[in-house]
Amino acid sequence: MSAATKASMLPEPYETLRLKTRAFIRDVVIPAEPKPGTTLTEATRRDLMSKAKAAGVFAPHLATEYGGQGVPLEHWPAIFIEAGYSPIGPAVLNCMAPDEGNMHMLELIATDEQKARYLVPLGSGDVRSCFGMTEPHPGAGSDPLALQSTAERVDGGWRINAHKRFISGAEGAAYCILMARTEASADEGFPAGATMFLIDMDHPGVRLGNPINAIDTAIAGGHPHVYFEDCVVTDDAVLGAPGEGFAYAQVRLGPARLTHCMRWLGLAKRAQDIALDRAARREMFGSQLRELGIAQEMLAQSEIDIATSEAIIDRTAAMLEHDPKAGAALSGIAKVHCADAIGRIIDRAIQLCGGDGVTDALPLASYANEVRPFRIYDGSNETHKWAIARRASSRRRREVEAGALPLDTVNEHGNDIWGQQ
Amino acid sequence: MSAATKASMLPEPYETLRLKTRAFIRDVVIPAEPKPGTTLTEATRRDLMSKAKAAGVFAPHLATEYGGQGVPLEHWPAIFIEAGYSPIGPAVLNCMAPDEGNMHMLELIATDEQKARYLVPLGSGDVRSCFGMTEPHPGAGSDPLALQSTAERVDGGWRINAHKRFISGAEGAAYCILMARTEASADEGFPAGATMFLIDMDHPGVRLGNPINAIDTAIAGGHPHVYFEDCVVTDDAVLGAPGEGFAYAQVRLGPARLTHCMRWLGLAKRAQDIALDRAARREMFGSQLRELGIAQEMLAQSEIDIATSEAIIDRTAAMLEHDPKAGAALSGIAKVHCADAIGRIIDRAIQLCGGDGVTDALPLASYANEVRPFRIYDGSNETHKWAIARRASSRRRREVEAGALPLDTVNEHGNDIWGQQ
Amino acid sequence: MSAATKASMLPEPYETLRLKTRAFIRDVVIPAEPKPGTTLTEATRRDLMSKAKAAGVFAPHLATEYGGQGVPLEHWPAIFIEAGYSPIGPAVLNCMAPDEGNMHMLELIATDEQKARYLVPLGSGDVRSCFGMTEPHPGAGSDPLALQSTAERVDGGWRINAHKRFISGAEGAAYCILMARTEASADEGFPAGATMFLIDMDHPGVRLGNPINAIDTAIAGGHPHVYFEDCVVTDDAVLGAPGEGFAYAQVRLGPARLTHCMRWLGLAKRAQDIALDRAARREMFGSQLRELGIAQEMLAQSEIDIATSEAIIDRTAAMLEHDPKAGAALSGIAKVHCADAIGRIIDRAIQLCGGDGVTDALPLASYANEVRPFRIYDGSNETHKWAIARRASSRRRREVEAGALPLDTVNEHGNDIWGQQ
Amino acid sequence: MSAATKASMLPEPYETLRLKTRAFIRDVVIPAEPKPGTTLTEATRRDLMSKAKAAGVFAPHLATEYGGQGVPLEHWPAIFIEAGYSPIGPAVLNCMAPDEGNMHMLELIATDEQKARYLVPLGSGDVRSCFGMTEPHPGAGSDPLALQSTAERVDGGWRINAHKRFISGAEGAAYCILMARTEASADEGFPAGATMFLIDMDHPGVRLGNPINAIDTAIAGGHPHVYFEDCVVTDDAVLGAPGEGFAYAQVRLGPARLTHCMRWLGLAKRAQDIALDRAARREMFGSQLRELGIAQEMLAQSEIDIATSEAIIDRTAAMLEHDPKAGAALSGIAKVHCADAIGRIIDRAIQLCGGDGVTDALPLASYANEVRPFRIYDGSNETHKWAIARRASSRRRREVEAGALPLDTVNEHGNDIWGQQ
Repeated sequence: MSAATKASMLPEPYETLRLKTRAFIRDVVIPAEPKPGTTLTEATRRDLMSKAKAAGVFAPHLATEYGGQGVPLEHWPAIFIEAGYSPIGPAVLNCMAPDEGNMHMLELIATDEQKARYLVPLGSGDVRSCFGMTEPHPGAGSDPLALQSTAERVDGGWRINAHKRFISGAEGAAYCILMARTEASADEGFPAGATMFLIDMDHPGVRLGNPINAIDTAIAGGHPHVYFEDCVVTDDAVLGAPGEGFAYAQVRLGPARLTHCMRWLGLAKRAQDIALDRAARREMFGSQLRELGIAQEMLAQSEIDIATSEAIIDRTAAMLEHDPKAGAALSGIAKVHCADAIGRIIDRAIQLCGGDGVTDALPLASYANEVRPFRIYDGSNETHKWAIARRASSRRRREVEAGALPLDTVNEHGNDIWGQQ
Repeated sequence: MSAATKASMLPEPYETLRLKTRAFIRDVVIPAEPKPGTTLTEATRRDLMSKAKAAGVFAPHLATEYGGQGVPLEHWPAIFIEAGYSPIGPAVLNCMAPDEGNMHMLELIATDEQKARYLVPLGSGDVRSCFGMTEPHPGAGSDPLALQSTAERVDGGWRINAHKRFISGAEGAAYCILMARTEASADEGFPAGATMFLIDMDHPGVRLGNPINAIDTAIAGGHPHVYFEDCVVTDDAVLGAPGEGFAYAQVRLGPARLTHCMRWLGLAKRAQDIALDRAARREMFGSQLRELGIAQEMLAQSEIDIATSEAIIDRTAAMLEHDPKAGAALSGIAKVHCADAIGRIIDRAIQLCGGDGVTDALPLASYANEVRPFRIYDGSNETHKWAIARRASSRRRREVEAGALPLDTVNEHGNDIWGQQ
Repeated sequence: MSAATKASMLPEPYETLRLKTRAFIRDVVIPAEPKPGTTLTEATRRDLMSKAKAAGVFAPHLATEYGGQGVPLEHWPAIFIEAGYSPIGPAVLNCMAPDEGNMHMLELIATDEQKARYLVPLGSGDVRSCFGMTEPHPGAGSDPLALQSTAERVDGGWRINAHKRFISGAEGAAYCILMARTEASADEGFPAGATMFLIDMDHPGVRLGNPINAIDTAIAGGHPHVYFEDCVVTDDAVLGAPGEGFAYAQVRLGPARLTHCMRWLGLAKRAQDIALDRAARREMFGSQLRELGIAQEMLAQSEIDIATSEAIIDRTAAMLEHDPKAGAALSGIAKVHCADAIGRIIDRAIQLCGGDGVTDALPLASYANEVRPFRIYDGSNETHKWAIARRASSRRRREVEAGALPLDTVNEHGNDIWGQQ
Repeated sequence: MSAATKASMLPEPYETLRLKTRAFIRDVVIPAEPKPGTTLTEATRRDLMSKAKAAGVFAPHLATEYGGQGVPLEHWPAIFIEAGYSPIGPAVLNCMAPDEGNMHMLELIATDEQKARYLVPLGSGDVRSCFGMTEPHPGAGSDPLALQSTAERVDGGWRINAHKRFISGAEGAAYCILMARTEASADEGFPAGATMFLIDMDHPGVRLGNPINAIDTAIAGGHPHVYFEDCVVTDDAVLGAPGEGFAYAQVRLGPARLTHCMRWLGLAKRAQDIALDRAARREMFGSQLRELGIAQEMLAQSEIDIATSEAIIDRTAAMLEHDPKAGAALSGIAKVHCADAIGRIIDRAIQLCGGDGVTDALPLASYANEVRPFRIYDGSNETHKWAIARRASSRRRREVEAGALPLDTVNEHGNDIWGQQ
C-alpha cells in the first residue's frame, strides 16, 4: 500500500475514489495547468472535464443522477483536498465555489422543474452560476441579517431591487441565486424574512457593474458588483419557500465555508511539496546545510498546520451531518484556523524557495495571491472571531445559569469569595 | 439535552461515561481542590478515589477486570479531557502519568503473575509507579535509541547499571519499569536491543538522587534522578520479551504523549472558563467595555486552540488504533500543537484576569507553571519538529521515487526545467 | 576595547559608569544571588548596598547630593539594563520600583523639608516606600482618571478614605505616596482633581490587607491591598500642589514604565546568556547537532527582541526629555513591545535548556515568573494597545482635517472616489 | 507645530528637509501615482524628478556637488521613510535601490574620471545602473564569499566570465558594477579576493537572460539574469583597488540593506494610514462597531511595529557611522525585524479594509506584493538569523573566555556545579 494511502481512514468506496482523484489530478490535470499568471482556457477546462467524467472522478459531491459521485458531506474532505492540489482541479472536477454550494442547495430545496432547468446543466459543467447575498456596507456581509435588497410581491411574481457586491463568478454565469428581503404574507402564509430567487443573468433588469480586479483568479467570472433594478420575476423563480431564505443561507454557508477550506488546503499541500522538493535539492547539492535547521522548523510548522487543518475540517464535516447547528458554529472555527494556516504554509514555502519563490518561475507567489482573500471572504476572520467569542460566552453563561460553579472567585479585597482564604 | 452534550459525537456507552465523569469532576472534585500553591494530600486523594469508584468513573482507560471502565483508546480523549478539567482530576481517577501509561503497557505485555503483583495494586490506586527511560545527556531522551543503561546477563537474572533522570513519580513509587540496553543471546534466542524490567523501588541497588524541584506539581513523586547500581534482578523481572524494549517503548510513548495532551487540554478549558466568567463579570459591571474587543480576540483564539487540539487529539487516537505507526507519527504533531496551544490558552486567561491572574487568588498562574514543562517533556517540541520535518521529507522523497512529478522545476537560468518558458 | 563596550554609543562619563556597573553586577552581585526560589535577605542587601556605594555605582538615577550618580534620564537605559542582569541588581543599586519612581517624583516636586524627611532615607536605601494609586475595579487602574479614593479638606489638613490594591512594596515600607481625589477650593485656589500625599505607613488609619501572593518576588514588600480609613494628615503631607495629582502621576508613570522595561530587559539578557552557554556546551559535546538549526532560530529571534527593545527604550528615554508628552505616548509602545519581548526571550531560554529550564537547577523558571506580570502591571498590554490605537486614530484624523488626502477612496460601487476608474 | 513634526528629534537642517520631502510626496507625488497594477512611465518620472530638484528634495543622500542634499547617513532614516510613503517616491527622489547604493559606493571609492563618467549621470537621474553580485546556487548569494564569477588578468585589462542572477534594475541600466573573483598578483601587489568592475551594459560580451517576472515592480528594470561571456575590459574599469571587492561589498551592503528598511517602512506607514482612514469611516457610519476592538488590536500592533522599526533603523544608522562593523551586524537584525514588521503592517491593513483590500480599488494588495520579496532579498531572513545566532554565540564565547562566569551550571546529576545545592 502506498505512502499516500497509509494515513487515510476513509471507508470504501470513498477511499478508492480519493485515490482515483489523486491520480487524475497528478497525472492529467497538473501537466495541463496554465503557467503562473495566466488563466485556464474554457476549451482546456471542457477537455479536462470530459476526461474527469471518463475517469469517474467528476463532481464528487453531486448525486449520481446528476452526473456526480454521490459522496456524502462527511467524506468530502479528503477528496476535495486532492482536487485542490491543482489550482485548476476544483474547476475541472466541477466542485468549485460558488457552483458547488449552489448545487448543494438546489439538490436540497429546488423543485423538479428547477432541478431540470438549473441543476442539470450546472452539474454537468455546461454552465456556471453565482450566488447573490453580499451587499455594500452596511448591508448583508458577514451578517446575512443586515440584508437590504428587497423583493416586493407583485401580481404573479416579485419585483426585485438589489445592489450586490463581490458576486463571485457573476461574469459569464448563466444564472444567479439571489437573496432578498421579503415581507410576511398572512394570505399566502409565509413569514417575513428573506427569499431565494433563481434569476437568469440575461433577465431584464440585471446589470453587471464595473469589473473588480481581485488578486485571486481561480474563480472564473471574477467578483463584480451586480445590480437588479426593478427586475420582475414570476413565482417559479422562488427557490424553496418564501421567507425561509435566512435558514437556507445557513444550509449553504456552513458547508460552502468548509469546502473552501478543503480546496485551499489542497493547494497548501502542493506548496509544501514544492518546498520539500526544493529542500531535497538543496540537501543534495550538499550546501547551505547551515540553514537546514531553520528550514526544518518551517517545514515542521507547515506539517502541523496541515494536520490540524485536516483534523478540524474532518471533525466539522462529521458534525455538519451529526448536528448541523453545532457544525455551522464549528465551521467558523475551521474557517479561521484553515485560512490562517493555509496562508502560513504557502508563505513558508515561498520563503524556503528563496528568490524563485517570488517570481513566476514557480507558482508559489500566485498561490499566495490566490489564498490571501480567504481570510476575508466567507466572513472575515475578525467577524468569525467576534462570533466565536460570543458563542463561547453564551455557552458558559448557560452553564453557570444551569448551576456550574462560577470560577472567577476573587472579590474586591483580593479574597476568594468562597471564603477559602 | 444540555449544551455540554450537544457537540459530542461519542458513541454510547462512552458518552454516558463522559457525562458522569464531567459531573463527578465538577460536583465532587473541584470543591475538594487544594488551594493554589498547595498539594493534594494522600488522604484526600484516597477519599476521592473511593468516591470515583462508587460513581463508576474510576480508571476509564483500564480493563474492567482491574477495576477500570474499559474504554478503548479511540474514545479516551473526551473523557480524559473532562478528567483534566481539575488539576487533581487525573490523580483522582487514576489516569495520571506515568501510572496510566504503565498500566497500558502492563495490560499488553505482562505475564499473569506480573499483572497480579504489579497491575492490580496500580490499577486500584493502592500504589504508584514510575517509568525509567530518560537519561542524562547524551543518553536516552527524546531519542530512546541513545540508551546508555545496561543490563548484563548473570546467572538466573540480570545485573543492571543505570543512571536515569526526570523519573516522574519516582519518590514514593512502589516500582519502576526500567529500560536498559541488553546484548543479543544466540543461546536464548533474543536479539540485541533494549529490555524492560519491573524493579521494586526498595530493591537493593536502587537509589534516589537529590530531589529536583520542577515548576509542575501535579505528578506526585516529583522528577528525581534514580540510580541503579549493580542492581541484580531475577528473570521474572523481565517485562515482555528480552531485546524488544524499543518496540515496547513506542507502544507506550505514542498513547502516553496523547493522554498528556488530553489531560492538559482539560485544564486549559478550565482556564478558558475562568476567563469567560471574568469577562462576563466585567461586562455586567458595564465598564472597561473599551477593551472588550481585544478580550474577544483572545477568547476566540483560545476557542480555536481548544477546537483544533480536540480535533487533532481525536484523529490521533483513532489513528493509533487504525495504524499504530502512522498514529505514533501523528502523535508527535498532536503533542507539539497541543503543548503550544495549551500554553497559549492559559496565558491568555491570565492576561484576561489582569492582576488577579498572577496571584494565588486565582489558580491560573499555577496552571501556567503546571503546563509549561509539557513543551519540553515527552520529547521537546523542537525534537518533535525535527522528526516531523524528517518524516515529511521522507514521505515526499518516496513519492518522487515512485514517479510523482518533481515540483521544484527551476533551473539555474531561472527557467522552468520542463521547458514551458 | 572589549566586546561589551564596542556597540555602546553612550557618551562619557556614563559609558564608564555603565562598565563599572557591569563589572560590579558580574563580579560582586551575581555570586551573592540567593538560590532560585529563595529571597534576598535584608542583611545581604545592606552589605551589597555598602559595596555598591563604595564602588561608585549606587543609585545611578539619583542626584549626587542624595548619594546617587546623577545620570540624566536619557542615559539611564544602558546602565539600568546592566543592573537588571541580576534579579537582585536593582535592589542592590537602589533603583528598583517603586522606590526609584518615588525618588524621581520627590526630587522634582517635594519641599526641602519633605526631601530631608523622605527622600534622604529613601535615596540612601535606609527605608523603602510605596506608591498608592491602583484601586479595585472600577477605580483607578490603567486609567488614573477613574480614581475613587477621596481626601476631604478638614481644618489644617485632610481626611483620607481609600482602598488601594496591588500596592507594590507596601509591606515593610516606611511611607506611601498616596493619590486621592480632592475637590476644588476657590478660597485656597486649587482646582478639582487629584492630590498626592506623603503618609507614614504607621500613621493612624492605615491598614494592610491580606497578603497577596503574586508570582513575582523581586519587589520587596509584595503587592498587598492597603486601606486608609478616616486617615487624617496635616497640610505638610501634601506632595506638590493640591489638585495637580493627575499631572504628577503622568510625570511618574512614563519613566517608571520605561525603567521596568530596562531592568527586566537586563534579566532577559541574562537568560539569553544562559541559553547561549547551554548551546555552546551542547555543541562541544558534539551531539544533538540535529536540533541546532532550530536552536539558532530561537537564539536569533531573542537577539532581535533584545536589540529592538534596546532601540525603542533608548528612543523613548530621549523622547521623554525632548518632548515629555510624545515620550509618554511612546512609553506605552515601549512597554507593550518590551513586556512581550522579554517574556519571549526568557521562554525561549527555558526551551533551549530543556528539562533543566523548568527546574530550580537553573534560575530560568523563576525569571519567567518574575517577568510574567509585566504584561499586566503598569497598565496591561491590552489597555495600552487600546490607547495606542486611539492615539493613532486621533493623529490621522488631525492630519486629514488639516488637509491630507483621504486614502480610503473606494465608494459603495467599488469605484475609486477620485474618479480614476 | 504640526502633529507630523512633534515626535521628530532630527537636528536642523535635516528636520526642515524632512518636512519639505513630506510635503512634496503628499502634494506632488501621490496625486501622480499610477493606478495599482500599472507602472510609472519614464516621462512622468522625469517630470517629477524635475519638480523634486526644483523643490530641493532630490537625492537626499547624495553630495551636493552631484546634485543631492548631502544628508549624512545617520540622518537618512526619517527622510527616506517620507520618500517611501509613495511607492514611486524613491524613484522620483532618485534614492531607489540599486542606484542609491551604487552612488554611495562610487562616492567613496571611484576615481574622479569614474565619477564624471558614472556618478554624475546616475546622480542626476539621467541613467540607471545595476549591481552584479548574486549568482545562481551555489555561488554568491547571501554569502558573498561563495563568489564564482572570475576576472582573469589579460594584457592591459581583464577578461570576465560571470553568470549573475536577480540583477535588479539590469534591463535598461546604463552600466553594471560587477563583482568577480580575481587572483593575487605579486607583481602588481594586490591580494587574492574579489574585484569590482564598472561595465557598460552594451559592452561586448554582456547579455541579458530571460526576463524574470517577480511580484514586486517598484525597481525599474526587473531582476533578470545577466551573462558576462569573455567580456574584456580595460584597467580603468576597475572600481577601487583590485582584490578589495569583498570589503567594498560590505561597505555597500550594510547601508543598502538599511535603506530598503527605510523606504518600505514608509510604504507600510502609508498602508497604516489607509487602514486608519477606513476604520474612521466605519466608525462614522456607526456600524460594525462590534469588530472595533479587534481592529484596534491590529492597528495598535502596527503602530508598535512601526515604532520599533523606526527605532532599530535609527540606531543602526547611527551605529554605521559610529562603528561600521557593529553597524553592519546590527543591520542584519534591523533587516529581519523590519522585513517581518513591514509585511505584517501591510497584511493587517488589507485585513482591515476587507474585500476592497484584495482588489485594485485600493493599492494595498499591490503593496503586499511589493514588500513580500524583502524577506528574501538582501540575504533571506533565515540566512540573517543564522548569522545573528552565530554572532551571539561568538560574543558570549569571547566573554566567557575573558573570565565571565559560565551560567549553565547544571551537572549531569542535576546539581549546580558551583556546589550551591
